[in-house]
Amino acid sequence: MAYSIANQTETPEVNDAFVLRPGGEFYYEQRPVPTAVTGRDVLIRVVATGICGSDVHYWQHGRVGPYEVTQPIVLGHESSGIVVATGPEVGSGLAVGDRVALEPGSSCNVCSYCRAGRYNLCASMRFAATPPHDGTLATFYTLPEECCFRLPAALSFEEGALMEPLSVAVHCSKLAGLAPGLSVLVFGAGPIGLLVCAVARAFGAAAVAVADINEPRLAFAREYAGVETVLIQPGQTDLAAKVVAQMGLADGFDVVIEATGVQSCIGEGVSALKRGGTFVQAGLGSSQVHFPIGLVCDKEVNFKGSFRYGPGDYALAIDLVRRGSVSVAELITHRYSFSEAEKAFQGVARREGIKTMIYGPGVKAADASSRL
Amino acid sequence: MAYSIANQTETPEVNDAFVLRPGGEFYYEQRPVPTAVTGRDVLIRVVATGICGSDVHYWQHGRVGPYEVTQPIVLGHESSGIVVATGPEVGSGLAVGDRVALEPGSSCNVCSYCRAGRYNLCASMRFAATPPHDGTLATFYTLPEECCFRLPAALSFEEGALMEPLSVAVHCSKLAGLAPGLSVLVFGAGPIGLLVCAVARAFGAAAVAVADINEPRLAFAREYAGVETVLIQPGQTDLAAKVVAQMGLADGFDVVIEATGVQSCIGEGVSALKRGGTFVQAGLGSSQVHFPIGLVCDKEVNFKGSFRYGPGDYALAIDLVRRGSVSVAELITHRYSFSEAEKAFQGVARREGIKTMIYGPGVKAADASSRL
Amino acid sequence: MAYSIANQTETPEVNDAFVLRPGGEFYYEQRPVPTAVTGRDVLIRVVATGICGSDVHYWQHGRVGPYEVTQPIVLGHESSGIVVATGPEVGSGLAVGDRVALEPGSSCNVCSYCRAGRYNLCASMRFAATPPHDGTLATFYTLPEECCFRLPAALSFEEGALMEPLSVAVHCSKLAGLAPGLSVLVFGAGPIGLLVCAVARAFGAAAVAVADINEPRLAFAREYAGVETVLIQPGQTDLAAKVVAQMGLADGFDVVIEATGVQSCIGEGVSALKRGGTFVQAGLGSSQVHFPIGLVCDKEVNFKGSFRYGPGDYALAIDLVRRGSVSVAELITHRYSFSEAEKAFQGVARREGIKTMIYGPGVKAADASSRL
Amino acid sequence: MAYSIANQTETPEVNDAFVLRPGGEFYYEQRPVPTAVTGRDVLIRVVATGICGSDVHYWQHGRVGPYEVTQPIVLGHESSGIVVATGPEVGSGLAVGDRVALEPGSSCNVCSYCRAGRYNLCASMRFAATPPHDGTLATFYTLPEECCFRLPAALSFEEGALMEPLSVAVHCSKLAGLAPGLSVLVFGAGPIGLLVCAVARAFGAAAVAVADINEPRLAFAREYAGVETVLIQPGQTDLAAKVVAQMGLADGFDVVIEATGVQSCIGEGVSALKRGGTFVQAGLGSSQVHFPIGLVCDKEVNFKGSFRYGPGDYALAIDLVRRGSVSVAELITHRYSFSEAEKAFQGVARREGIKTMIYGPGVKAADASSRL
Repeated sequence: MAYSIANQTETPEVNDAFVLRPGGEFYYEQRPVPTAVTGRDVLIRVVATGICGSDVHYWQHGRVGPYEVTQPIVLGHESSGIVVATGPEVGSGLAVGDRVALEPGSSCNVCSYCRAGRYNLCASMRFAATPPHDGTLATFYTLPEECCFRLPAALSFEEGALMEPLSVAVHCSKLAGLAPGLSVLVFGAGPIGLLVCAVARAFGAAAVAVADINEPRLAFAREYAGVETVLIQPGQTDLAAKVVAQMGLADGFDVVIEATGVQSCIGEGVSALKRGGTFVQAGLGSSQVHFPIGLVCDKEVNFKGSFRYGPGDYALAIDLVRRGSVSVAELITHRYSFSEAEKAFQGVARREGIKTMIYGPGVKAADASSRL
Repeated sequence: MAYSIANQTETPEVNDAFVLRPGGEFYYEQRPVPTAVTGRDVLIRVVATGICGSDVHYWQHGRVGPYEVTQPIVLGHESSGIVVATGPEVGSGLAVGDRVALEPGSSCNVCSYCRAGRYNLCASMRFAATPPHDGTLATFYTLPEECCFRLPAALSFEEGALMEPLSVAVHCSKLAGLAPGLSVLVFGAGPIGLLVCAVARAFGAAAVAVADINEPRLAFAREYAGVETVLIQPGQTDLAAKVVAQMGLADGFDVVIEATGVQSCIGEGVSALKRGGTFVQAGLGSSQVHFPIGLVCDKEVNFKGSFRYGPGDYALAIDLVRRGSVSVAELITHRYSFSEAEKAFQGVARREGIKTMIYGPGVKAADASSRL
Repeated sequence: MAYSIANQTETPEVNDAFVLRPGGEFYYEQRPVPTAVTGRDVLIRVVATGICGSDVHYWQHGRVGPYEVTQPIVLGHESSGIVVATGPEVGSGLAVGDRVALEPGSSCNVCSYCRAGRYNLCASMRFAATPPHDGTLATFYTLPEECCFRLPAALSFEEGALMEPLSVAVHCSKLAGLAPGLSVLVFGAGPIGLLVCAVARAFGAAAVAVADINEPRLAFAREYAGVETVLIQPGQTDLAAKVVAQMGLADGFDVVIEATGVQSCIGEGVSALKRGGTFVQAGLGSSQVHFPIGLVCDKEVNFKGSFRYGPGDYALAIDLVRRGSVSVAELITHRYSFSEAEKAFQGVARREGIKTMIYGPGVKAADASSRL
Repeated sequence: MAYSIANQTETPEVNDAFVLRPGGEFYYEQRPVPTAVTGRDVLIRVVATGICGSDVHYWQHGRVGPYEVTQPIVLGHESSGIVVATGPEVGSGLAVGDRVALEPGSSCNVCSYCRAGRYNLCASMRFAATPPHDGTLATFYTLPEECCFRLPAALSFEEGALMEPLSVAVHCSKLAGLAPGLSVLVFGAGPIGLLVCAVARAFGAAAVAVADINEPRLAFAREYAGVETVLIQPGQTDLAAKVVAQMGLADGFDVVIEATGVQSCIGEGVSALKRGGTFVQAGLGSSQVHFPIGLVCDKEVNFKGSFRYGPGDYALAIDLVRRGSVSVAELITHRYSFSEAEKAFQGVARREGIKTMIYGPGVKAADASSRL
């Protein structure tokens, strides 16, 4: 039996979209309901969408790195939903009514990057809410079947939406070579940093610390992930020494995962690494920083940029939550209906709470947060 | 039969050393001849020593990074020589008269780094010509047996001395994952950069280019390693695009190996990388640079510091020369007797030629350059 | 300008096929000329096809492993040809007239194996001449664009056809971790073994030996790849010790690549490995063997099965030949026109020569062997 | 303050040893108390020793693989103890009174294997209870400091002794590439198999099953590690299909770890693997088996022998128990005083319980099992 939202099994007959105009103004419009679902495409009714810092950045600055808003665009890329139609060549067994998490980027699948298992680097990637591609803050969204991940009964739609940032954290953690027994220092106690803390625990890290300038966020981190915390003081230059001592590490951290993009954090992070350690930059958009390259050489640091997520990351994210190794529900501190979407953006811009959720048109909170 | 230098099989009875005083003055002194060779130690009469940029830097600036000349020190760490005595526990078959290349750093062998195969990161490393440890510009030098590599007949002592910078190049190339078919861009056509070019060829790179600001060095690189060359113009900001186009690469280089430490080269190098590419910084001492961290993330670059050399690097360096895959002799452009050592340093400081060699006390050029 | 075969630029109007009937009888038939080339498909006129042991095995035994000939099938999978039509979505720039090597298996590109860069393990793989999929011994063959590799001017069609077994050798060599300085022992001096020898050389192996029971094949190997050879005596049990001594290896080979499938070779190969060495079985179809598992454990051997080829293998194979690192032309010892195809199979069954080539219908030897 | 056993801080004045004579007879003898502790050696009073299947095999068959009992030998290699003296060059801070787990093999630390981080493959390894080297069933045992691991307060001596088999399990699991989300099938529910199950859980495996012919052992496994279990029926040939279905796996297990050495288990294990999966053989001494090499190739299986343990394994084993990720105490089902050692061997030979512990001379059970 197909899953129903609010006892309404019919597919909506309109496609409401929340659109950002170049210049920074939001508006609603009705777009055509997709009718012909072709090939291996899957049409999804969007149930829940988390708001990401990059969504807000597009709104406030009109661009993120090289991507610029030059025409109206629908934002949103952390989403879950219900399958409402499948193309004739869908072969994975996905069916109407399936609850799914959306991996919001479709790659060409045949270039040398895709063939080699690095589809996140595909030059033809169409990624939701990255100009010129629309995102998921609409009634409907279409993805090829390989980007739709069936949600286990234990996960709500809200949790399903959070598989996107959790996949970012999983990807960073894999790049970092996180393994049992290692020590990890995370910079930033926002959604990505918190999820990295939780994933580090799930990967068996022996010692995890998170640093931030915001004590309430650190308090949340202690509660949420049971990690050590370090309050960063403005202008502080001995953070690395302090946290290494605090953790009782003879020789520095095995792994640093940086989720702030702040120059001083990158510097202190390299200082806090042990020789031969691995540093992963969780890609948050600073374009240039002062960088301690001498130390990177002397310690033979492996410094890796991380970009979105790749093979197996979504599946592992879902599995970690299904098995209770990582929990994500408590990150959701604010919830808005579709008609309140701009209010949601304003809240995130004010840095309220941890993660803000916007429901799809006509979706009730109870539907989005309940499990099967 | 033991190898003799200038038909003189006896071990010298004095130990001449060329010493740098804090403040930058050189002087000669006679030091005690090591008598008791204990444990697994090997006493070597030094035959040839190449001069490295770091030697000159200690002379001119009194320090390299955190290492400061606070007491008289013997410089030199690119050396070969003849075994003149072996400790009672030497078990590898090394014998008096053996011609050897010297890996000039001895590690503790039992810390967690050494046990895990990363002895170059050993905190107890005693490295020649790195304060407070004396180097090899003396009659004698002592090393544990695992640091002495028997030279095949095909290698001269001079070539043996160059196994040190060649091991640096081998180590970078291994860290870079150099493999057949890859494209490589090298920055710097000095000794390390040139050797990296030659190693890249030997590792099967499909396309190798080297960039430098010095056209004669590039001409040498073309001749020596048969690589493409790019002359860097002061202030140039389109180097990456230019060299990628020149090489006919659709998507940038698989690998960049940076052997200048110059900020603009690091930036252009990251630009010239393809997505998912690997950048290796060959550790030349800049402490801070402006760094394109945004691009490192967007391309998911693997950026690695390289520090000296590790397991198997010396053995492979020797093997590459023995089999004719890499040739090093033509890099030696200047040769000095031990009594001319300061003149040698002056030449290197003036950046004359490519590689300058200083012979051990009493060693003749013919002895050092002949093969068996 | 489109390449012409025998000055005949028109596409043939018939599609001749050389078909194997269940039971082992060959016959020719005319099949429909493919008309509608759709999607990303490319229609190729087949110019040259090498005959593989598996083709002969299907003919003589009706099956290879789990794959059985239960309906008429066209054999042949080592092929090159000319593009005669491209589907409307072909985006890689392939054009009519392009000379291409054919990677003869198309995968689904979206399953977890394909997404992770292991498309050779795709359960939906359609592989030429593996029942029920027809092979390339016909006028025409259709493949998706990612399976068509443009031939550089330096490669003839015949050489292009050999990119298939060369890719097998490249894949084995990559799985083996072949790198400069390593020692390699190859079992079998047939086409795959010989190509592995050549690839090992191109990957910088310091020492390569090949073992076979057939002295003329070993003589060919010495000439072709400049490797050491070992004649295997029937019932011999000291082969490993003998070849390790012959090569002057203190401790055994770093790598063994087995291309015979013969039980005694596998056993001797494991014996000949050094501790921690890697053994790659080049997948030739024995289903069960006696296996020295005790030794595999004591030496902590990494024993890997190799299956066809994967990401980058075809590109590297072509690059190795283009750059002159590997040469394949001299492996071709016998050539047959399409009408002599059965004679070609008989020759291979008699183990005549090294590699036998069958030209496509109407193709002249001069066309297939000339370079641009 | 030094730790005391039974309030007796003095070092024993005799060195009792439990000795196996060639032929299989045990006897006690007093051996000299080691007096001069030299170099980096550490003298340990042995507190607890677990009995391993190999100890019993030496007793009953006089040999294990190539190692034969040709002169009297002390068995035992799973031990913990108290430091009673340290050599003058011990630099790691180990001090008299420290409670330590013993890694019972000392390697040369300077051969190419040791230098490269694979000291378990060192040809000069001196391993306890492997002829001709005595084991730990005596009052005293001497090891270099790098083989002595300080026990955290949370671990008892008995648990410390079990760090040896736990390190075996850790090593297998690392070789297998065990990572969060993977599915694992373990063969054998003896001590190693059970520890592998526990480690697999700690490494984040999503699904773990263990197969054995002994239902009580499987019941223990369910209780101990919370894993799925499969009872192997004699002559069963559909085990692989059955367990794959039981676990609801579409495609087989990611990893198989084999800890029985039984031929049919190896075969079923390969069958139960997914394509591209990894099989680790936990080295239990079968010398030859029938082996499904065709399947190993078709699936491109990575089949690895595992030998003892290497860098970081002991440290991780201790860390896993300290953090509560793995528990080992409940594996100890039988305990014997030193004077009952032969009785202990008889019990293990009868396969009673899971793990049997023998205390060092004069050690009380309460001392060995209490934590600090």
